[in-house]
Formats: sequence, structure tokens, C-alpha cells
Amino acid sequence: MGMIGGGQGAFIGAVHRMAAAMDNQIELVCGAFSSTAEKSFASGKELFLPENRVYANYEEMILKEKQLPESERMDFVSIVTPNHMHFPPAKMALENGFHVICDKPLSFNLKQAIELKDIVNQTKQVFALTHNYTGYPMVKQAREMIKNNNLGNIRKVVVEYPQGWLSDFVEQTGQKQSLWRTDPEKSGAGGSIGDIGTHAANLAEYISGLEIAEICADLTTFVEGRQLDDDANILLHFNNGAKGILHCSQVCAGEENALSLKIYGEKGGLEWHQQEPNSLVYIQKDESKQILRTGVGNLFDITNQHTRLPAGHPEGYLEAFANIYRNFAHAIRHKDDPAKLEENLDFPSVYEGIRGMLFIEKVIESSKSDKKWTKIDV
Amino acid sequence: MGMIGGGQGAFIGAVHRMAAAMDNQIELVCGAFSSTAEKSFASGKELFLPENRVYANYEEMILKEKQLPESERMDFVSIVTPNHMHFPPAKMALENGFHVICDKPLSFNLKQAIELKDIVNQTKQVFALTHNYTGYPMVKQAREMIKNNNLGNIRKVVVEYPQGWLSDFVEQTGQKQSLWRTDPEKSGAGGSIGDIGTHAANLAEYISGLEIAEICADLTTFVEGRQLDDDANILLHFNNGAKGILHCSQVCAGEENALSLKIYGEKGGLEWHQQEPNSLVYIQKDESKQILRTGVGNLFDITNQHTRLPAGHPEGYLEAFANIYRNFAHAIRHKDDPAKLEENLDFPSVYEGIRGMLFIEKVIESSKSDKKWTKIDV
Amino acid sequence: MGMIGGGQGAFIGAVHRMAAAMDNQIELVCGAFSSTAEKSFASGKELFLPENRVYANYEEMILKEKQLPESERMDFVSIVTPNHMHFPPAKMALENGFHVICDKPLSFNLKQAIELKDIVNQTKQVFALTHNYTGYPMVKQAREMIKNNNLGNIRKVVVEYPQGWLSDFVEQTGQKQSLWRTDPEKSGAGGSIGDIGTHAANLAEYISGLEIAEICADLTTFVEGRQLDDDANILLHFNNGAKGILHCSQVCAGEENALSLKIYGEKGGLEWHQQEPNSLVYIQKDESKQILRTGVGNLFDITNQHTRLPAGHPEGYLEAFANIYRNFAHAIRHKDDPAKLEENLDFPSVYEGIRGMLFIEKVIESSKSDKKWTKIDV
Amino acid sequence: MGMIGGGQGAFIGAVHRMAAAMDNQIELVCGAFSSTAEKSFASGKELFLPENRVYANYEEMILKEKQLPESERMDFVSIVTPNHMHFPPAKMALENGFHVICDKPLSFNLKQAIELKDIVNQTKQVFALTHNYTGYPMVKQAREMIKNNNLGNIRKVVVEYPQGWLSDFVEQTGQKQSLWRTDPEKSGAGGSIGDIGTHAANLAEYISGLEIAEICADLTTFVEGRQLDDDANILLHFNNGAKGILHCSQVCAGEENALSLKIYGEKGGLEWHQQEPNSLVYIQKDESKQILRTGVGNLFDITNQHTRLPAGHPEGYLEAFANIYRNFAHAIRHKDDPAKLEENLDFPSVYEGIRGMLFIEKVIESSKSDKKWTKIDV
Repeated sequence: MGMIGGGQGAFIGAVHRMAAAMDNQIELVCGAFSSTAEKSFASGKELFLPENRVYANYEEMILKEKQLPESERMDFVSIVTPNHMHFPPAKMALENGFHVICDKPLSFNLKQAIELKDIVNQTKQVFALTHNYTGYPMVKQAREMIKNNNLGNIRKVVVEYPQGWLSDFVEQTGQKQSLWRTDPEKSGAGGSIGDIGTHAANLAEYISGLEIAEICADLTTFVEGRQLDDDANILLHFNNGAKGILHCSQVCAGEENALSLKIYGEKGGLEWHQQEPNSLVYIQKDESKQILRTGVGNLFDITNQHTRLPAGHPEGYLEAFANIYRNFAHAIRHKDDPAKLEENLDFPSVYEGIRGMLFIEKVIESSKSDKKWTKIDV
Repeated sequence: MGMIGGGQGAFIGAVHRMAAAMDNQIELVCGAFSSTAEKSFASGKELFLPENRVYANYEEMILKEKQLPESERMDFVSIVTPNHMHFPPAKMALENGFHVICDKPLSFNLKQAIELKDIVNQTKQVFALTHNYTGYPMVKQAREMIKNNNLGNIRKVVVEYPQGWLSDFVEQTGQKQSLWRTDPEKSGAGGSIGDIGTHAANLAEYISGLEIAEICADLTTFVEGRQLDDDANILLHFNNGAKGILHCSQVCAGEENALSLKIYGEKGGLEWHQQEPNSLVYIQKDESKQILRTGVGNLFDITNQHTRLPAGHPEGYLEAFANIYRNFAHAIRHKDDPAKLEENLDFPSVYEGIRGMLFIEKVIESSKSDKKWTKIDV
Repeated sequence: MGMIGGGQGAFIGAVHRMAAAMDNQIELVCGAFSSTAEKSFASGKELFLPENRVYANYEEMILKEKQLPESERMDFVSIVTPNHMHFPPAKMALENGFHVICDKPLSFNLKQAIELKDIVNQTKQVFALTHNYTGYPMVKQAREMIKNNNLGNIRKVVVEYPQGWLSDFVEQTGQKQSLWRTDPEKSGAGGSIGDIGTHAANLAEYISGLEIAEICADLTTFVEGRQLDDDANILLHFNNGAKGILHCSQVCAGEENALSLKIYGEKGGLEWHQQEPNSLVYIQKDESKQILRTGVGNLFDITNQHTRLPAGHPEGYLEAFANIYRNFAHAIRHKDDPAKLEENLDFPSVYEGIRGMLFIEKVIESSKSDKKWTKIDV
Repeated sequence: MGMIGGGQGAFIGAVHRMAAAMDNQIELVCGAFSSTAEKSFASGKELFLPENRVYANYEEMILKEKQLPESERMDFVSIVTPNHMHFPPAKMALENGFHVICDKPLSFNLKQAIELKDIVNQTKQVFALTHNYTGYPMVKQAREMIKNNNLGNIRKVVVEYPQGWLSDFVEQTGQKQSLWRTDPEKSGAGGSIGDIGTHAANLAEYISGLEIAEICADLTTFVEGRQLDDDANILLHFNNGAKGILHCSQVCAGEENALSLKIYGEKGGLEWHQQEPNSLVYIQKDESKQILRTGVGNLFDITNQHTRLPAGHPEGYLEAFANIYRNFAHAIRHKDDPAKLEENLDFPSVYEGIRGMLFIEKVIESSKSDKKWTKIDV
């Protein structure tokens, strides 16, 4: 694995490295960790990389690695840069024969996303997008239960994602994480809706197996001076007639990272909270509530395949993230042997990336409109 | 106390009787418990009432009780009939010199609500509406904390009220509770939005101290054949600029009575769940989460005045309901001595009733409209 | 109902009055509320009692009420005095033809308890002891599940009851509740073990259907100057070979009233927390955890008979307490018609009272002994 | 790192490998994964190790690795064999100049533990024992709060560790994990008390900063035919006068891995549950309950140093385990530069190992004795 971005002070780069390493299947062999060469070299040194495998920029990395013997060169790149720098290295890596795993959202705008889809299709490289929350075993379990009709027809989906870390005008103080996320030149057109709203929308579609067909959005920027939205409330219509709500916020002072989802069908409902990810609440008409727990009882195979430890040994955010990497590595390994590609070992790809970019653009369009409903289509 | 409605098989009548009795201050002395005389007499007998104080209908009760000596006759009526039968007995009781406590929503429609306000103002009788959830001590605590600016300016309110008991077409089976609630002739224009949505809206306004100024509503009837809505998703704009979401449903299969509220301001947030009512979650920017508990630590006076028991002795739905009755009785007792009326001993009145009827009518209007925002005003 | 004790400033007297009133079946008609006549009269006035039904002392009350016409006089006495004043009024009331409901523990010492049993047997009056925690519907459910062999043979019982309100030497400040509870002249030989340990032991035996056969106790007085134990750790052997632990404390600073019980058998386990009483956690080998909730699903009849409200309308301490009163009233009403006495409407009686006094005495004996095990027998 | 044990089918070997890899600081370079050579080679192949670094047994591994150039050979061994095979490879590795990290309990018996302490002292190699639960950030936080006197003098410690996976006679079915754990030839004299009781005792001593001075133990073997205890209830006396309870069980049918600890002092208490490890409940006299959360608010430095992710990104069992490995690696790296050894980066060592073996032996002695108290001393 070669990493693009994720140098000193970055949060998500370290996450990707830990997630990649955990299962003893992926090794970080090179990197271009920063847009400035010195920072890249300093970061590489901290990561125990040999000097000749740390590069001044991603273009150099892709070109030089390509020239190394196959057994030595990186197999894929991991892109962990701000949003505006997802597309250029992804395109270049794919076109030079490297697989790509990329942080979300897919790109700076929808146009890039669609172009990237074509590149992936043409190059036939493996492409993964780290909508990491779909890597949790209990998210897999929820999806399978719905596929299995445990809830009956789905009627309602409520997904919420409150955070509080942007409650104040912290980007003015130079806080690194907030700086690019609140800058439309780097983040794209969406603020909270891009950073976390896309996770929420992805989770809703992944678990329900449905698509969001129409929305009615109300975006707000609560912090004076901020350039992008920091709060969103959205009504949802799904393609099967189900209704729903998505709300996300980065100004809910005191909230941590409280992504949660409730989904209701004719026969029962499910509730999942990212902050207690090893439990899945299952309610049914006229039945006692059940708490499904990783490792306990009769869960679906796909759930167990994404669980590393026995019951009562909590797994968390990194383990879910590592499931995306592990499945991505599996797909690379068996790329040319479709018989060995297992359906259960799924991961978000360019399709989910386009859905996300479409969601951002339509939410912004809806929020500006006096019309109640805006369709989600290209 | 004389009761109108609440005969055999009714749910809410028994609740009112237990709530009224709990504090040893109010005695049930008479009743007209049903629209049929025999049922009324049978119910009165079960309740140990003397035969001559059980009446065939509410008109008879009001007229005959009026003729009894003051020390003997009922002081007030408690109206626990279906919605369409709130206004007529309330009007007659008030005009004949009796105070009134009435179940919610206030009336069959907004027009009646406004007329009732005028009658209350003219007769100067005490009038209470049992939006009972505002009787919980931790709801009082939340309201006071917000008044006290613990959260700073309010940015966001999320109130939800999922139930599951109407997931199927139970009114077709003759189930008594569902029968009138799903019948527009008895329930009024709102289904779930009237039965529980008004509780949610009332709670949001009571705790926040704000008014809902604009809404964008999406009502659904999921159960085929049902005449009224059974699900509602609504975007909210408050009069201070805060945003919010209200959703309620009676078709979330497996949910019990899961009213909850989250409210966020610049400095922190609060979270309250009716099903665990003795806890109030208090989060703050860069501080550890706190769980405020009834009876523990430095709570507001108003909170403690609505708590009967020491810490760790859970109080529930009936105790909150009894707080409404106790405060109503206090207001009657000190009606002519304003010095003894305590601000803390508040209860919902005709104002909250009008807000509720207005909310129902505007939600229905909004739901039918293609326009995004509908103002909440008379 | 005539009350003995429970005057101004008392906690448990008010609880008994609310519990008795709740179901509209029991009326407070007279009382001797204090050991001083003035306080008794002042308390009676506050409770809206007519002057001639408030008595200077319990002897006067029992004798004068006995002379009233049967339709007018009290049916039973409720004894809510400190422990040393349970036996004398109970004995006198029973011997003068009144039924008795008495707070726990039964008496000042075991000798009195045994004598009281004989009096109850001779007078054939109804006697109830308010081990109120057994009135919770989910405690009934747990007991029935174990009777029904849902857990298989019971292996282990862990019951704990930490409180924190005696963490400091509050009895020195004159705090009324602590004053008599820490005074061996009034409380008897047990401190925490008598006040709350007996509740814990009663709950363990009630739910398990077993008897504690042997104990190994370690009592401590942590607060310097205190005369009685304020903390207890005890190993248990049950009469079926099950093992267990009981610990209680009144010096766990910050704890409220955290009575809880876990019980494990060959096939599964149950967990109940008094502070969230409407839930019962049910675990089974290789099955998902279940949360049984009052009003939800297929519970035992006895559970539903002790539940007043639909699912999601929380009931608490007073409702459980009221269940004891309601069942006691039922037993009085049908005293002479055994066919109408329902097995489900049970309540703790003099047998449980003797078990409690025996437990206190044996715990103290064990704690002083170097011997590991002390048998629980008379 | 070279691994001893942990071949195919082993649970704890995989855990050690994931924990070691997570922080990108430790690489698995060789192993002797099984007591049979073929299994060792097969396991090494699965782990992508070169053939020449997989050994038939640990003796061969230690001797051959020693002959490799320093830059190439393993730095330390990780011992993940059953208990009876801890001491021999640990001794040999230490005496041949390798650092050692070893699973718990330290050894087969106390005698070996004491001998190992001498070897560690003589060889001056770094030795770590994976009492992994002390690696959780909130366990560190609890320990620091107590050091910091937040609770005042400690009065009571309640530690419990129920599991259910040995509820049946599974060792008879050949289930690998149970086989050696229930075999006194491999596990040593303790069953549940060695496997999980030592974790509980270690956690109690680590968090409290106290030592268990005296015990009164009641061991049971519930499953017929089993050779070792599967349940333990123990009264504790600590060296400061605090009292406590430790109970553990592997036959609590339906329990997962429910290690938890409550600790109370004069001013307040703490509660921690391994299954929700990112929260620490903090109660205080007359104050609202607090839920301390990793990453939120003003935690101790040591807590933050053991947290990888921002608030609301749950870390679990592997991350806590990895903290032990990371601190062990830090100690190796700075072994000769005490100035760089940070006090905060502690890990359990041979001292805790001896405490554990002593605990096992004394619990067994106490359980067999009629005497109430047994001292914990060598």
C-alpha cells in the first residue's frame, strides 16, 4: 500500500494505516504524505519507511513505483487527502495500473464522480470508497435481516448524525481538521452534508436496500462567518414508498459522533448506534425486544465474517474500517478469479460514491428551492 | 371531581382517576361515564360511587350537581371523552360554574378551541388540558435550564414520538382505543398528528420556551383502509431562528410509547426519554456528559416540587399526570388569592390547547401543499 | 385505613398513603400519626381528616375505632413507625379485630416476630408486610419464569443494594430518617442489613423460590461514631445447592437506591434493576439477549395483573407499593370466601417477616464469628 | 516479534498478532506456532511468513534466531501457549537475550512465578504480562482519579466477571478453548479463578492502587465431570481496610464477557464495564452522575495517551490489548535510556504475575478451609 496524504497532524490518515495493518495482510510500503515535500519526508520517517519510498508528491510516487519490480512495488494507493484532491490522484493511479481505495466523499463534485466511474470501468482496477460505517458487523446484520424480510415492507427510516465539534468558529483559529472541511475550495459544495450527511445517506441506503428518490432539505449555517452548511434537516422519500428523515449537524454542542439509524417495517424495527456498535436492537410487533450482539446466537454468516472476536470482546471503529480494507484486499487478490470473490465480502465502490455526490448536489438544490420535493436523479 | 366519560374499557379515564387520587387531595364524587346510561351506571357502581351520584349523561350531571349544596357538589369536571365530545361538556360545565380539566387535544377543530378560550376568559373558571408529559420533573428541569441559559441560544430541536400499536388495521377488528382515534367524525382531522403529534409539539414548545413558526409536513397513511394519517415527518422553524424536526408515528411496529426530545444550543444539549423519565442527559462542549436524576444534586426548585420520592425511587407516567391534577387543584384552591398561586405549579391550559389545534390544521395544510413552508398562525 | 406513625417529616408514611390511595379502593379515615399528641393532630389536619378521627396515640385509636359502627370504623391499620414500634401496635390491632399492614422489618427482634406469627395465626386477621419491591410486575415475571423452569436449575444469585445517603455521619446533624435507623434502641440489631439487606434477601428468595440456607457475612461500620453496620458483604448458600452473593451498603457515596438482582441457571439468566423497573433482561445460552418490558408480548398473567398501564407508560415505586396494598385489600375483602382469593394476588406476610428477622440475627452472628458458614435456621 | 503458540484454531494468538500489528510498530517475523511441527509450518504459511522463519518448536526458534544478525532477528517473543507452557519458553528466551511478552496467568504455579521473577531481574530483559484489561483508557482514567483522591479513602470494591461459555460440559466434545482450560495438567490448579478471576483481581488492584490482603473464598464446580472450579464467590479485605467482593463464573449461561468493576470511596464512586469500555461512570455525593467518555473533556494525560481516536469513535478490546504491546515496545526501545521511559506507558509485569499466582493458590486454600479468612502473602 502506498498512501497519498495523511501526514503529520492528519486524523484520517492514521486511521487508514491502523485499519490496513490490523489483519496482517497489508503493509505500508511507500507514501506521498503531504502537499509539501518536507512534510512528506518527515512523516515517512516517523512511519519507519525507507527514505527512497517516501515521495515529494503523488505524481512522483505513482510514476516511480510503477517502475519498480512487481513484487516490490505498491499494489494499491490509499487516498486520504481533502476532498478536492481525491480525483486527480485516483485518476492517475487507476490509469497507471494501481488499485485505489479512497476516502469519502468520492470527489469534489458530481461531474468528477461520473468521470471516475468511467475510468474505473475502463481500467478494470479495483476501487473502494471508505464509507467505513458499512464495515460494522451489526450493519451487515441489519442489511441481511431486511433482505431476509424480517421487518416486512419498509415504511420508515430515521437516520441521524449529530456532532458538536464545529459548534464554534474553530476554523478561524486554524484548527486543521476544520480548516479544509469548511472551505468550499477544498471541501466542495457541502459542509456537514458532505462530511457526515453522505455517511448517513449511505448507511440508510445500504441497510434498507432502498434508494432515496426525493428529498426536501433545510440546510443551515449556524456559526456566523462559516462558508458552508453546518446543519441539515431533510425529509426523505424512498423508491419503494417508504418515508424518512435524515438530519446531521456539526454544531450540536456536546455531541460526539452519534450516527444512528432506526428502520421500521410492517413487522418490526431495528435500531443501531455507532457509538455502541456491537449491539443491534430488534423490535417486533407483540414480542419482547431483542438485543442482537456480535458473536451471540444465530446471526447471518456475513455478520460473523466481519467479526474477529468472541462475544463480549468489543470491536470498534478501527475494526469496522479494517473490514473495508480486508475486503478490498480480498477483491484485489481474487480479481481475476471471480469464483473466489465472495458476495459477503462487499465494500463501497464508485457507485456509492456517485450516490453520495448526487445527494450533496440535490440537497443543496432542494435547500435553496421553495418547491417541496426535489428528485434524486442524474 | 365529577368525571365525564371514562367508563368500562376506557384507558384514559382510569389514568385520570388514579392521577387525581394519588395525592389524597381530590375525590371522585360523581360521574357520567358513558354515552349510554346503563354503561354509566355500571361503571359508577364498579367505582364504589353512590347511585344518586351516577348520571345518565353529562348534561344531567352538570345540572343536578349545581343544585347540591356547595360543600357536597363536585368542584370540577374531568373530561375524558373522545375528541369530538370535549367541547360541548367543557362549555356547559364552565358556563354553569364548574372548573374543567380536559384531555387533549382541546377540541374537534380550531374553531371550537378559539370559542372555548373566550368562554374560559368570560367565566373565569380554571381550565387545564392534560398534556401530561409536561408534568414530569425532568421536563420541568429541562425547561428551567434553558430559561437559565445553560445551553445558550437554541439552535436545534429534535422531537420524536414513535408508537407501533396501529401497525395493523386494528380498527377493523373493533379494538376500542383505535376505533374513535381513526375515525374523522370523532377524532377530528388529525390521526397520529392529533393523538400524539400534539404532545410532541407541545413538549418541544414547553421545554424550549419557543414557538414553532413554520413547518414543512409530510403525512402518510401506511395502513390501507385507514381514514386518517398514521405517520408524520415534519421540518420545523422556530420563532428564534432555531431549526428542528418532529416525527411521530403509530405504525412503527414494535415501538411502545417512545416520546423523546433532544435540544441543542450554542453551549450544550439536553436529551430526555419518556420511557426513562427520571433521567435527563446533559451534554456540554468539552465537558463530560452528565445524567441529571430526580432527587440528586442541585436541581431547580420547580423540579423538586414535582418529585415525590427520594432519589432512586422511580416515578412514572401516573406521577407526572398527577402533577397536572395537583397543580390544577392548587389553582382552584387559591383562585381568589393570587398571592398564593405559585408560578412553579403551572399546568397546560387553553392557550396550549389552541396551539395544538392550530398545529394539527397547519400540518394537514402543509402536507397537502407543494409549497415548502407553511406558517403557523391563526 | 387508620395509620399509625407517618406524621410530618416522615418519608415512608406519605408513601403508604399514596400507595393506598392510588387505586381508589382504600380511604384514609383516621390516624395516630406521632408519639406526641400535638404532632398527631397537626398531621391529621394537613391530611384533611376530621378532628374526631385523629388520635393522640395508637392505643386510643384502636379502642375508639372499635366502638364505632362497622360501616364507619377503619378496616385495618397501617403501621409506619420505626422498627421498635412495629410489634406493640400490630399485636394490639390484631387482638382487637383489625387487619394489619406493617412496614418492614417485621419487628425489633426475632423473638417478637415469632410471637407475632402466633398472634396472626390465632386472630386469623390478614397481615401484610411491605416488602414493596416484590410488588413490581417484572419481579413477578422473573419469579414465574423461574417457576416455569425457563432458566433450568438455579446455580447462582447475585443481589446487591448500594445506597449512599449515610456516607457521612448525618445522624449527628439530627437528620430525621437517619436518626432512628442508626439507633440500636429503635432500629434493632441491624443497621444497613436490617434497613435494606432484608429487602435484598427477601427479593432473592422471592424471585428464586429458594431459601438461603447458610451465610458467611462481613459487616462493617465505615462511618466513625456510627452505632450500627452501614455495609455488608455476604456469601450465600441456597437450599438447592445454588451459590450467591448479597451485598448492601448505605455508604456507597453517590449511589441512589440501586437494588438489583442477577440470577443464573443452567439454561440462562435474568437481570433486574429497581431503578429501571419496567425492564427485565433475559439471557439464554446461544440466543440473543431479550429485554422483557411491562405490557409487551407474551408475559405471565401475574405480571399483567400487576401492571396498570399500556407498554411504554412507565410505572414506578409507588405503583409497585400500591400493588401490595391492592392485594392486601383484595385479601381482606375475600377473607371469608377462599374461592375468590387469587393465587396471583400474593403479598409478603408474617412468614417473610420471620425470614427477615432471622436473616438479620444470623448475619450479625456470622459476622462476629471466625467460622466460615452459619446456618439460617431458628 | 517471534510468536510461541497461537497456531490454527487458537483464539488468543490471533488477538496478540492483531494487537501487535495495529500501531505499525511491531512486525511478526518468525514463530513456533504449535507443539507439532506440521501445524507450526501450516500456521506460518497462512501468516505469510517465509519458510525459514517458521520453526518446529520454540527451542529451535530461540536458538536459531539468536544466531541471526541483530538487525534481522526477532526482538522479543510473544508467548501465547496454554498456562503450563508459559514458564519454559519464557525462561529460555530471557536467558538467551530476548525480551518476553506472555499471556496470563504468569505460570503453572506460584513456584515458577517466583523463579521467573528472579530470571527477569537477573537478565534485565523487559517482561510484560498481558493483563490486557488494564490497557483500556478508561481503566487508566479510573486509576488516576483514585490516585488523585477524587473518591477520597476507598471503602468498597466490587469486581465481577461472569461468562457463560462453559455452562455445559463442552470439554467433553473436544472444544479446543475449553479443553486445556479445564485440564489441571495444563491450566494449573485454578479453573475460572485462574482464567478470569486473575483478571478481575488484577483489575481491582490496578484501579484501586490497593492490595488484596485477606480473602474468604467459595469455589464451586457446577458442571458435573469438570475437573476444575467454574465459579467463584470471594469476600475481600484490602490492605487499607477497604472491603470488597470478587465473583467470577464461566457457567452464567448467556453471559458474554461481562467484566465490570465498581469502586466506592468517601466522596464518590466509579463504575466501569468492559463491554462498554469507552464510558466510565462517575458518581459523587449530592452531585449529578457523570459519564466520562474517551476523548471528551478534561481527562488525565495517561488516558489520552492510550486513546487513538477522537470522541465517539469507539475503541475496543484489540485497541486496549494493543496498548500493552505499544507500551512494551516503547520500554524495549528506551530500555537503556531511563529518561525516555514514561511513567504513563506502564504495562503489567512479573510483579502482577506473582500477585495472580498467589491469588489462585490462596483462593483454593481458602475455599477448602473452614476458617473464614486467609491471608494473601507468600
